[in-house]
Amino acid sequence: MAESVAGPEIERLIQLLARLPGLGPRSARRAALHLIRKREALLGPLAEAMKNALERVTTCSVCGNIDTRDPCTICADPRRDGATLIVVETVADLWALERASVLRARYHVLGGVLSPLDGIGPEDLNLTSLVARVAKGGISEVILAVNATVDGQTTAHYVIDLLGAKNVKVTRLAHGVPVGGELDYLDEGTLVAAVNQRTGF
Amino acid sequence: MAESVAGPEIERLIQLLARLPGLGPRSARRAALHLIRKREALLGPLAEAMKNALERVTTCSVCGNIDTRDPCTICADPRRDGATLIVVETVADLWALERASVLRARYHVLGGVLSPLDGIGPEDLNLTSLVARVAKGGISEVILAVNATVDGQTTAHYVIDLLGAKNVKVTRLAHGVPVGGELDYLDEGTLVAAVNQRTGF
Repeated sequence: MAESVAGPEIERLIQLLARLPGLGPRSARRAALHLIRKREALLGPLAEAMKNALERVTTCSVCGNIDTRDPCTICADPRRDGATLIVVETVADLWALERASVLRARYHVLGGVLSPLDGIGPEDLNLTSLVARVAKGGISEVILAVNATVDGQTTAHYVIDLLGAKNVKVTRLAHGVPVGGELDYLDEGTLVAAVNQRTGF
Repeated sequence: MAESVAGPEIERLIQLLARLPGLGPRSARRAALHLIRKREALLGPLAEAMKNALERVTTCSVCGNIDTRDPCTICADPRRDGATLIVVETVADLWALERASVLRARYHVLGGVLSPLDGIGPEDLNLTSLVARVAKGGISEVILAVNATVDGQTTAHYVIDLLGAKNVKVTRLAHGVPVGGELDYLDEGTLVAAVNQRTGF
């Protein structure tokens, strides 16, 4: 019924907001009302920020990151360690690692994982550019920071094969108990890995 | 750390998205990435829809509803029952009642409730226009569809006093067990009301 009372512009706003991850039809309506109430403080700036992003955000031609410059801020940063390359599935994973700020290295975003069931093959990922970057030299270690899923691990093995002939060390992230995690809630695979890869104090 | 890698435009988009109800910092990042990935299909249309809403959405001068026209679609609809006026706190409540499509009546949006603690007095609500609408005649019943909260009920009693001298029937929504609700999870006040206002089959 909301269609007939709120006007097509508001209804369209709600429908588009409902397509954001984390928002359903009900929360999209709440978000739309919130936006309209905070017209000057939020709706205007957000519309402007989206227009800016639409016009200026681009994909880095070197690593596949998204940014408003190409090469992206990370690729252009001379203070980054160019000898270590962290391979991630998505830009979200890159952001997650940057938030942890564990390594000031460079990245390569695959743009997904191999998934025969979804029809995603090697030609759909940024693999050619990865091999080219490694072949160019200067990289001593490639960290495969892919997800610990079946598709992620399949992709990791494919990348290891691809880079096999190159003179580069390939590593992967450690498995184990998440910090703050409770053993009781962990699956057996994680527990086995955590026990087998135990370390000294 | 995301500030330093994603560029100020993307960071600003994330910060603004995080101010939507239902989105936190983490889901705002996910939403921003989703928007940038679906640039043509979602980011562009949403920026456009927000710009449209910003320029065209207005508050109805008759009832306080929001719409792209003034008077709003409901106030302008000649098929609506003009003798029944449903008083609601917010536009969200109006939308909720319209979704239930229980009455094809007209509305009056108070824009809030009396709340001394929050410094909201009668002059902050659309009460003068409500009294004027009722005084103009043609309205036989005012349904006070305010929330069943303390502030909502205080507001209801204030409105009843305001309309006391007018020749109009003032009603309120029934209390009782929500449809599909389980008695075990209901508070005692609701159960008392449901028992006292029991009906025949």
